[in-house]
Amino acid sequence: MKSFTIGLTQFAAGEFVASNLDLAERQVREAAGAGANVICLQEMVSTLYFCRTEDPAHFSLAESIPGATTDRFASIAKELGIVLVLPLFEKRATGLYHNTAAVIDADGTFLGKYRKMHIPEDPGFHEKFYFTPGDLGYRAWDTAFGKIGVLICWDQWYPEAARLTAMQGANVIFYPTAIGWLPEEKPTLGAAQHTAWETVQRGHAVANGCYIAAANRIGTEGETEFWGQSFVANPYGEVVGRAPENEEAILTAEIDLEKLEEFRRIWPFFRDRRIDSYGQIGERWIDDAP
Amino acid sequence: MKSFTIGLTQFAAGEFVASNLDLAERQVREAAGAGANVICLQEMVSTLYFCRTEDPAHFSLAESIPGATTDRFASIAKELGIVLVLPLFEKRATGLYHNTAAVIDADGTFLGKYRKMHIPEDPGFHEKFYFTPGDLGYRAWDTAFGKIGVLICWDQWYPEAARLTAMQGANVIFYPTAIGWLPEEKPTLGAAQHTAWETVQRGHAVANGCYIAAANRIGTEGETEFWGQSFVANPYGEVVGRAPENEEAILTAEIDLEKLEEFRRIWPFFRDRRIDSYGQIGERWIDDAP
Repeated sequence: MKSFTIGLTQFAAGEFVASNLDLAERQVREAAGAGANVICLQEMVSTLYFCRTEDPAHFSLAESIPGATTDRFASIAKELGIVLVLPLFEKRATGLYHNTAAVIDADGTFLGKYRKMHIPEDPGFHEKFYFTPGDLGYRAWDTAFGKIGVLICWDQWYPEAARLTAMQGANVIFYPTAIGWLPEEKPTLGAAQHTAWETVQRGHAVANGCYIAAANRIGTEGETEFWGQSFVANPYGEVVGRAPENEEAILTAEIDLEKLEEFRRIWPFFRDRRIDSYGQIGERWIDDAP
Repeated sequence: MKSFTIGLTQFAAGEFVASNLDLAERQVREAAGAGANVICLQEMVSTLYFCRTEDPAHFSLAESIPGATTDRFASIAKELGIVLVLPLFEKRATGLYHNTAAVIDADGTFLGKYRKMHIPEDPGFHEKFYFTPGDLGYRAWDTAFGKIGVLICWDQWYPEAARLTAMQGANVIFYPTAIGWLPEEKPTLGAAQHTAWETVQRGHAVANGCYIAAANRIGTEGETEFWGQSFVANPYGEVVGRAPENEEAILTAEIDLEKLEEFRRIWPFFRDRRIDSYGQIGERWIDDAP
């Protein structure tokens, strides 16, 4: 297969899980109708971004993966013949939860899941209260349309995560996301923050000679204004598609495997990695000698 | 110190080492006159980019580091009270050469050297013939004006190199560079290649919350058109200064340590690195299970 089409979706979540999932299904059908073969939904697609506060009641929103929601979307995937990246709030055991994405193949097969490895904890983003850091490591899956990897939101700031996903052969890395502006930061830092977010992911695309695709929610929840702008970058770091900042949208883009091949032939970065010299990547910081 | 000023220089090299070094000295004096405290020159500042072909005669261009050229520029650094990153072709022993940058403090002290770790070998860039890959690892130095790191050209495509330099406390990473277009690629890929080059380095700035500063030569040597455009990016990945594509230039920019501090407080990426999960960074590729 020389190319396939991906689709990203973004919408403003509401209070009710059932409505959010209906909206997600509608967007998946729309993206498939627009030609998407592999569709990625936004982070925690079934709920509001409840991590704005720390409230044990929100654990009621979690579910098993696989479970009822993945079963429902597996049927849709099979019906439409599309691959799905479906991010949900996972209940693993009583008192043990993850921020997870399920990967479903075009025949409805549940291929596996990725559990978010890097968990933020910042004003308005209290994820360490809810989510145990992932323990499945980095993953890539062979799907009906190509090999894909999945990372989630805060992971996008970590070159190590993208590298370890690309090293498994992922030709595109999906990033379901929930990132937005806080009102006290937006006037002075808003544009810079968006630039940083997009740029670091474009950088991962270049460093790994792969495509990057981020699906980010829209809408204002409490004081947090999610900035949408789901986008796709090619191996040159060029943004080949970008959704609006505050409109519900689906975005499709071609994953051109010949372009990826050409890039890695001209700039064969993987050939020259100094794997003998990276040991201290596993340290927290490199302190001065005492 | 809350900030300091860096300077980058770019020029078209000629055949004669003496003339190139005179030009380099003039640019250093000009940059210092413009307020630069820490000045980085382009890769292999004393010579043409001789790696376009494989010719043993070019080994005559190499010199000891420290040696006559670092002594000359150490005197200039002391006279002007500036820190210098001085990239030269290093002869370490008969038959053993490196692509190296010397770091000289503002009192003329030779602080040490960085030997390029990642060595390319591509049409027009036959560096594996000339340079043994560096064996000093990644480095950062305390200088009179701040802690700096140095990487060289092909290193810029490797997030691992930037990470390991930043983890030593470098607030700015300098990249002396010699990158350009080949005539058979420029019409179709030239713009994308420049975007990729700038973007991946801007990504390193974001991922590590530091400044990045690349000094690239200009001029056409043989068929290779070096693209200049030396630039500085801040921790948000914003380009805060960029030199022209084909004009001799010095570029100055402020390294604002308060901005760096603010960035890392709002987005404390180093806090959340999953150092338990990065072990396979030291592998060549992650193959499917047999």
